[in-house]
Amino acid sequence: MHYTSESIETVVELFTSLPSIGRKTAQRLTFYLLRQPRETVDKFSSALQDLKNNVRFCSHCFNFTEQDPCVICTSQKRDKSTICVVEDPNDVLAIEKTGEYKGLYHVLHGALNPLDGIGPNDLKIKELIARLNTDVQEIILALNPNVEGEVTTQYLAKITSQLDIKTTRIARGIPIGSDLELADEATLSRALEGRIQL
Amino acid sequence: MHYTSESIETVVELFTSLPSIGRKTAQRLTFYLLRQPRETVDKFSSALQDLKNNVRFCSHCFNFTEQDPCVICTSQKRDKSTICVVEDPNDVLAIEKTGEYKGLYHVLHGALNPLDGIGPNDLKIKELIARLNTDVQEIILALNPNVEGEVTTQYLAKITSQLDIKTTRIARGIPIGSDLELADEATLSRALEGRIQL
Repeated sequence: MHYTSESIETVVELFTSLPSIGRKTAQRLTFYLLRQPRETVDKFSSALQDLKNNVRFCSHCFNFTEQDPCVICTSQKRDKSTICVVEDPNDVLAIEKTGEYKGLYHVLHGALNPLDGIGPNDLKIKELIARLNTDVQEIILALNPNVEGEVTTQYLAKITSQLDIKTTRIARGIPIGSDLELADEATLSRALEGRIQL
Repeated sequence: MHYTSESIETVVELFTSLPSIGRKTAQRLTFYLLRQPRETVDKFSSALQDLKNNVRFCSHCFNFTEQDPCVICTSQKRDKSTICVVEDPNDVLAIEKTGEYKGLYHVLHGALNPLDGIGPNDLKIKELIARLNTDVQEIILALNPNVEGEVTTQYLAKITSQLDIKTTRIARGIPIGSDLELADEATLSRALEGRIQL
């Protein structure tokens, strides 16, 4: 479909290239922006520039940050003896939201996936191993509950057991607010397996 | 939720301000852009600038355009005796996609909605009336099939009948590929009402 404007077409195509945005949504977003005052669009445009200019990886935990090391890695309030290993920066946000965790993080930027050719060298695994000094007393593996996350968990657990560091994984079970009869067999069997004494 | 980066937070908030984008999607889009090469983000940023700099309203049909009058209004191939009236520029795209319509358009930029305080002066209605010279032989009303579209259709039909111009509306009925038993009563009764002889 050709637009009467090249500039509209370009923005629609760029929006369409983003994950989970289809062509219809891209059109709607573009037309919405066209109706906004110039300041809004200018703000958007320069915010994208700032994003690329200001944000880098923390050289310790590989989360996104504006200062290196990041505020979590440098905070006096965080417990430096625990490192929680996650796949993505989004996962750090999700865990921070609980307000329960006071240790440090390590972002792998993915999970092992031999079919897609993602091996240990494509993830921040050697950077994790380099952080495992005598201060670190526990590694919490908080990877996604799917095949890739499972493979990565097993791989990391093997390394940390050789280094003799206590390694745990987050519990898999029935989500809060959900219905037992709606849980799939895999989840239910993990929930039984991981039962705790009352 | 606080991010460790102000620049990330700004982009997430700007994405969240767009229609149909929630906070989780906004986060995903922002992190996706962070992973892209600088050129992609630069392209996005400057495409948004171009959008505001290059695109304006066609002074004839009020569709978005880079040249005024727009390519449809100036095309020698279009039938200047028919004007199809729509609510939004998206609707022009949708009709152009059919490849069936060869006349001109007029974009109202909304529909009458007394509850939201949108009256005739908030839409491009007087601009439409100004276009109704002797060349124009038919007005096709293609507004959305809801209360606001219906009110606007009746309002415009009254004006055009006073000006003695043939006025039609697009058919309402069962959509192609859908199931008769799934159609609601209103649609089904319009489909019966609008039956044509074979």
